[in-house]
Amino acid sequence: MPKTEHSHHPAFDRKLALILRYAARVFSEKGFEGASVRDISRASGVSLSGLYYYFESKQKLLYLIQLYAFSNIVRRLEERLAAVTDPVVRVRILVRNHLDYFLHHPAEMKVLSHEADELEGRFRREIAEIKKRYYSLALGIFEDLRSSGAVRRMNPRVAVLSLFGMMNWIYTWYNPKVDPSPEAIADTMAGIFLEGVANGHRPLRVSNGRANRVAHSTRREPEFAVRAAS
Amino acid sequence: MPKTEHSHHPAFDRKLALILRYAARVFSEKGFEGASVRDISRASGVSLSGLYYYFESKQKLLYLIQLYAFSNIVRRLEERLAAVTDPVVRVRILVRNHLDYFLHHPAEMKVLSHEADELEGRFRREIAEIKKRYYSLALGIFEDLRSSGAVRRMNPRVAVLSLFGMMNWIYTWYNPKVDPSPEAIADTMAGIFLEGVANGHRPLRVSNGRANRVAHSTRREPEFAVRAAS
Repeated sequence: MPKTEHSHHPAFDRKLALILRYAARVFSEKGFEGASVRDISRASGVSLSGLYYYFESKQKLLYLIQLYAFSNIVRRLEERLAAVTDPVVRVRILVRNHLDYFLHHPAEMKVLSHEADELEGRFRREIAEIKKRYYSLALGIFEDLRSSGAVRRMNPRVAVLSLFGMMNWIYTWYNPKVDPSPEAIADTMAGIFLEGVANGHRPLRVSNGRANRVAHSTRREPEFAVRAAS
Repeated sequence: MPKTEHSHHPAFDRKLALILRYAARVFSEKGFEGASVRDISRASGVSLSGLYYYFESKQKLLYLIQLYAFSNIVRRLEERLAAVTDPVVRVRILVRNHLDYFLHHPAEMKVLSHEADELEGRFRREIAEIKKRYYSLALGIFEDLRSSGAVRRMNPRVAVLSLFGMMNWIYTWYNPKVDPSPEAIADTMAGIFLEGVANGHRPLRVSNGRANRVAHSTRREPEFAVRAAS
């Protein structure tokens, strides 16, 4: 939990964390604009005056939800990366860390993805700062992958933001009743990002819009081009 | 342009298309909730009573923006796919068609991605129907890729929704001043989806969380595993 003025009181922190969870749920259901502090009071069972002891405005609440989530994600990522130097494994840790947090915090995921524009002034700048740190960390992992020689030439910004897109869009569709576990989703997405949907099976080579396929059984032989059916 | 009650009048259709463009811009800047028909009147230079001749509510307007965009995307995609049977090329067409439309219609892209939840009742059901058709089309392309043997076993739903995530999230970051052209972005994203960031360079094999790399120069030789630095 990030530091606040009162963070030396564990009871305060626990109560605030609880309020943030309820607030994220209310914002995810009604939207930040549409939700009122009264709705949060109703959902959490904390009186209005009780709530205002913990935060002075809806803006502050949205700021705290974002600060809490991103601080956690970045801190956990740094811990998990600390002992790992292999750039491929580091990409997998990045994906797993992001999805692990968000798929277990679906309301926060929706609020962070969907209400990012609602913050104003100092709150907005502070969150932009921590997001930038996170983005730089991710970009650094991708750059290491590149300088290790394990990755083809590619615009790093586009590659990293494509990866975040894959992961963040999940708030629109993930359904724990029909979809695989967070761990399995993370493996699939890391696999797509690193190796594509085709890799591990038959390599695909496309040049000039024409696809040539290398038959699986001949993978270790000199490649021969099979004219694509079209 | 999809049919409306008045769509036999070309002048009506042209004017409505113009209004929809201004409305998309206003919704993308102020959000659907925050925007008023008066804002759209101000932006478009069409009087309030003039606007109400074309649509009877803000809901109808959001519905028309979505209907117009998705109808266009699906129709163009069907046209572009008609003569192509190669599943790899069909994936590339899907990506290019989607990004071609959205990167040239950034306001619509933001509204469609961000305000999808705002539609209600019959409007919502109709748009859900056309989105479902689009999703089925995309899923079909991926299924064809799979049955062609060109793709590894993978949850098709997760794969296709990961692809849409990569593409749709772009509304949060694409900046024509610093980012590559829509065509180049489409190539990069299709490349990531099909082949990963690594393919075309050094194949990566990861098993049990340990990455083994096949050196580029030995690609056509029997693979040997290089123990990952860690």
